Amino acid sequence: MVRWMLSEAEGYDFLKKYDVPVPEYFIINSPEDAAKAAEKIGFPVVMKIVSPQIIHKSDAGGVIVNVKTAEDAKSAYTKILTNVKACKPQAEIEGVIVESMAKPGVELIIGGKIDPTFGKIVTFGIGGTMVELVKDVTMRVLPVNEEDVRSMVREIKSYKLIAGYREEKPKDEETLVKSILNVCRAFEENDDLIEFDINPLRLYEKGGVAVDTVFIFSDDEKKNDTEIPQVDISIFDPQAIAVIGASETPGKMGYAVMHKLATFPGNKYPINPNRDSVLGFKAYPSVLNVPGPVDMAVITVPSKSVPAMVEECGKKGVRIAVIITAGFKEMNEAGRRLEQETVAIAKKYGVRIVGPNCLGLISPHKGYDTTYVQRSPKPGNIAFLSQSGAIVNAVVDWSLTNNIGFSAVVSVGNQSDLTFLDYLRWAESDPHTEAIIMYIEEINHGVEFLEDVSRVAKVKPVVAIKSGSSARGRAAAASHTGSLAGSYEVYMEAFREAGVLSVTNLNDAFLAAAYLSHPKHYPKGKRAVVVTNAGGFAVLSNDYAERYGVEMIDLPKNVVEEMDEFLPPFWNKGNPIDLLGDADGERFAKTMNVLEKYDDLWDICIVIGFPNLVLSSEHFAEQIMTLSRSTEKRIMAVLIGGHEMDGGREILRANGLHPFDELETAYRILGRTLQSKFRVKGQGLF
Amino acid sequence: MVRWMLSEAEGYDFLKKYDVPVPEYFIINSPEDAAKAAEKIGFPVVMKIVSPQIIHKSDAGGVIVNVKTAEDAKSAYTKILTNVKACKPQAEIEGVIVESMAKPGVELIIGGKIDPTFGKIVTFGIGGTMVELVKDVTMRVLPVNEEDVRSMVREIKSYKLIAGYREEKPKDEETLVKSILNVCRAFEENDDLIEFDINPLRLYEKGGVAVDTVFIFSDDEKKNDTEIPQVDISIFDPQAIAVIGASETPGKMGYAVMHKLATFPGNKYPINPNRDSVLGFKAYPSVLNVPGPVDMAVITVPSKSVPAMVEECGKKGVRIAVIITAGFKEMNEAGRRLEQETVAIAKKYGVRIVGPNCLGLISPHKGYDTTYVQRSPKPGNIAFLSQSGAIVNAVVDWSLTNNIGFSAVVSVGNQSDLTFLDYLRWAESDPHTEAIIMYIEEINHGVEFLEDVSRVAKVKPVVAIKSGSSARGRAAAASHTGSLAGSYEVYMEAFREAGVLSVTNLNDAFLAAAYLSHPKHYPKGKRAVVVTNAGGFAVLSNDYAERYGVEMIDLPKNVVEEMDEFLPPFWNKGNPIDLLGDADGERFAKTMNVLEKYDDLWDICIVIGFPNLVLSSEHFAEQIMTLSRSTEKRIMAVLIGGHEMDGGREILRANGLHPFDELETAYRILGRTLQSKFRVKGQGLF
Repeated sequence: MVRWMLSEAEGYDFLKKYDVPVPEYFIINSPEDAAKAAEKIGFPVVMKIVSPQIIHKSDAGGVIVNVKTAEDAKSAYTKILTNVKACKPQAEIEGVIVESMAKPGVELIIGGKIDPTFGKIVTFGIGGTMVELVKDVTMRVLPVNEEDVRSMVREIKSYKLIAGYREEKPKDEETLVKSILNVCRAFEENDDLIEFDINPLRLYEKGGVAVDTVFIFSDDEKKNDTEIPQVDISIFDPQAIAVIGASETPGKMGYAVMHKLATFPGNKYPINPNRDSVLGFKAYPSVLNVPGPVDMAVITVPSKSVPAMVEECGKKGVRIAVIITAGFKEMNEAGRRLEQETVAIAKKYGVRIVGPNCLGLISPHKGYDTTYVQRSPKPGNIAFLSQSGAIVNAVVDWSLTNNIGFSAVVSVGNQSDLTFLDYLRWAESDPHTEAIIMYIEEINHGVEFLEDVSRVAKVKPVVAIKSGSSARGRAAAASHTGSLAGSYEVYMEAFREAGVLSVTNLNDAFLAAAYLSHPKHYPKGKRAVVVTNAGGFAVLSNDYAERYGVEMIDLPKNVVEEMDEFLPPFWNKGNPIDLLGDADGERFAKTMNVLEKYDDLWDICIVIGFPNLVLSSEHFAEQIMTLSRSTEKRIMAVLIGGHEMDGGREILRANGLHPFDELETAYRILGRTLQSKFRVKGQGLF
Repeated sequence: MVRWMLSEAEGYDFLKKYDVPVPEYFIINSPEDAAKAAEKIGFPVVMKIVSPQIIHKSDAGGVIVNVKTAEDAKSAYTKILTNVKACKPQAEIEGVIVESMAKPGVELIIGGKIDPTFGKIVTFGIGGTMVELVKDVTMRVLPVNEEDVRSMVREIKSYKLIAGYREEKPKDEETLVKSILNVCRAFEENDDLIEFDINPLRLYEKGGVAVDTVFIFSDDEKKNDTEIPQVDISIFDPQAIAVIGASETPGKMGYAVMHKLATFPGNKYPINPNRDSVLGFKAYPSVLNVPGPVDMAVITVPSKSVPAMVEECGKKGVRIAVIITAGFKEMNEAGRRLEQETVAIAKKYGVRIVGPNCLGLISPHKGYDTTYVQRSPKPGNIAFLSQSGAIVNAVVDWSLTNNIGFSAVVSVGNQSDLTFLDYLRWAESDPHTEAIIMYIEEINHGVEFLEDVSRVAKVKPVVAIKSGSSARGRAAAASHTGSLAGSYEVYMEAFREAGVLSVTNLNDAFLAAAYLSHPKHYPKGKRAVVVTNAGGFAVLSNDYAERYGVEMIDLPKNVVEEMDEFLPPFWNKGNPIDLLGDADGERFAKTMNVLEKYDDLWDICIVIGFPNLVLSSEHFAEQIMTLSRSTEKRIMAVLIGGHEMDGGREILRANGLHPFDELETAYRILGRTLQSKFRVKGQGLF
């Protein structure tokens, strides 16, 4: 593998080819040519040594700025050569570059690098020496279009430096947008370009110029995007399951799994060479001895025996092997080789592998559970895909307490064969699944995953928790550009582009999935109106709305007047609409009518209630459902309190409108939803 | 009220008196004096018009910079006068100021203003034209000491501009610290100074100089800090309670309150001129007719009758009147006057007032509840003080579902007489109270409150939710300096200085209070070690720790070696310590032993468990309690999952170690705890 960097002149030439403005320059080799070049360019000029051995030109005395006359240019040439020869006598000197001296302007950075998961990404932000201090950058995964680039430019915090600020006139945003687009095109068209930094690009009221550039190329073999085979999702609907390593000893994995599968409605075959039966089912010494067909095998034998068992599965015509056993690549190098061997055997026979080192699959609607969770989850409409077995255990137990059901639970394990991509496709075509949650530590085929998840997220909400955001967790991966665009940030951006809703914890994931599994799915915009009978929660609503990027509309005069008709004279006449603690059902109903009538003003209506003597939670919930049914817009119900609010919560849940019981959480989830759809910003969103 | 601003020269003189470095200057009135002054100062100099009528000197052509010779100084004088006379013929000209031209340096801002709640505050941060763009400022409530100022300087994000950055040498931090301290002293010593901005103060490798200053003075009558009377907390322990407006009509306030007080163990007297008895208790036409003494009166009659009722209470010798009735200053101007009248009458008789416009008081240990919440809360060790009645309703109902008890619940209402300050003093001396939660919209006597709460927080953890953080909620209060140091930020800083733990929602408030009510209260430092058997939660722990400013220690070699003795060979040898999914009680016990032995390495140990077949939640909890008992350091238990973990949770709760059931929440609360004690920073803390 060879890597090379463009010289300054080569960098300028490269950008010029892509219509990005660069300084005029000449490379010369004599004092006279220096003067001529400078005159041609126009004063002042900058002169710099050109030598592949000299990286830090200033340190070697190889840079003279602000050269103002032809005479000065001549003497600058001589001085540069003298300095450099004294400082670096061995350096090979190709000449001196004379270039126009760019006047001061807003200093911006355009960078590019290849993310190991998602490929080419471009970053944009405040450049110059402030870049590390201010860290005001944004990024996109390529490809991008003009609209993407415009949104990038506008979403940096310091955008006012470009749009105009104090007495400063606006800068040439069109030139900037065109330059970024052209740089992106250059990145896409040059397969061997692996990293670059244009820092600064100086932007003026008219035009701009790329002053300093680094371009790194590599002849590294590009990963040949091997076609990922489409998984045949019928393998997740087995008629017969064999448990290889089935046992009657409680505490053994083979016992727990067999115990769980006892209720599977299809055929089940314990495989154990030492027993005639296990838990009442006839046992066979090998899967090859099973008389009928076997679709799925669950393997719990020690790791060293796994390849042989997969070989037998292959011979038997098993379509999917769930390898629970640990001790593969997650343990050591020998384990990694054992895993490769296992996958190779499976591939030979066309057996697909779940795991190894996993809990396997649960399909409550089809009645199988290959895991050793203590109690199986209930059927429902959420598919949960997890890269952590402990999290599957915790979530399943939690779901039973919180009355959440699943269409599928998958512990993906080492993803030696089947990956998130395949399970996502399963969830996509599964008719029971209304929303998908993923706990992700690492995605293998990022580009294909994004393509798929973008498609899925359009029809079924996809919620993701990506772990590994901490510097501590990924210190090893740090690099110069990495410090600005670490891999967690790339994940977040890629997910946003794909329409995946990112959250940071499991509770939020389930609340978001439950809320978005409503047939209306996502709100169509970010404008919110709030109705409550609780003054304190109205005040907090403003705080949370700002923190999580929810836009609170102002009530137009005519709407206020219409509400004046039936609200007490001292109502707050604003949004949140505070109906006051003595608000009864009628006051709510009339308010809901007005909101329905003016539902073009808002995209989301947040209704907040608390236990009180005037309005029962059931009546409150019915008011909410009436509004929800009468508009295409989305309603969010927040019922704060204890058991007094349970009646109302149940009514809402039964109608598919999952309520929230904590106000900040409701706003945080709404904010993240809007962030994933409309790129809203808020201090509390990250 | 008269306000005045110092001229540039007066500002310099003022700062000079306080030993803050300023440019040398002269005010002159002739070209010759200009030249002389410039020569005395040394070139280059800046020359500016001095005229009280000219605020924007540059716009009037009144500024010439970089004057390099005596001749130039003369002509600059003439030019300035010509420009100004042409532009502002009416302006009164006092002369031209000639001052040394400060060389470029790091541009900083020191500002001061008077916060309406907490008084004098000082801000420090990045100055110059970047100030609004970067918004990198910090603040303190006066008085401050040298240590405070040092921490201010070091906590701005751009501190490396001062400490040295890239090739830049460190700047003169000592001069900076001394200057800020001196400015603070000036602010404290000058009662009529109400606002100032030194922007920029230019800081160099050696020394610095205040280049541009604004000082605003006012002869405004200073609020004469009227002594706040110490509340006699025995008023909260009544022997006899009268309900003025007691009723037998369900739905009426006077019914709900009387109904609630029926179980009060002391005497209770319904007051109702139209009935002989209410709910079986003998009724009296007036409180004056009650035969025995009355300590407390609860008033539910319409607002216009309230002053007369308070008058009767006064005559009867009632010590505390809880005015539930609304319709006072929260409604309109007439209500405000009615409230003043009521307070004046009460003062005359020495009756203290709770409310009006409130739910009143609940003291579960003393057996009274003046509110109309649906069910009274249980006795416990948390005092909850709330500025929202709806929030009291929601919290009390929630507490019953979540098995939380209270030592006191107070709905403070309009705080016409008794305020947060008084209720805080009650909670302080109440032996049942172990932790205090406040929901605050506004504090009346900020300075006294801070003094009191600082004292209380040293012995009983105080947790606060302050609403009104949103720009929308406080748009009206915005001002130039206000945009940098809005009142919410001042509250947060004041709370931090007082040792109050700030959270943003009620759930967090209760979790924090419950956790901190343990006899060990706060952790003694910010170093954390994490133990878990759940790999996924170990990964998330790193993320959350970074997000919430929790410092994860590195395990020293000898500790790793000691743990190698009993952990599986492929354990992660790091922190979080991942004991793996098959970790049994013994593995935990041995690990806990090592952690106990090396408890000088850490201040907090977070133990995370999930439902699994190897270790029951009860055994897990016992391991945690063993560690907690064997060390002075604080333990945090996180039991993730559903009912399978309830057994362990109960054991921990019974031992005063309140468990968490969601990992991010646990870290967030720990982060906020450490923020309030050690000023830790994290993206997720605000």
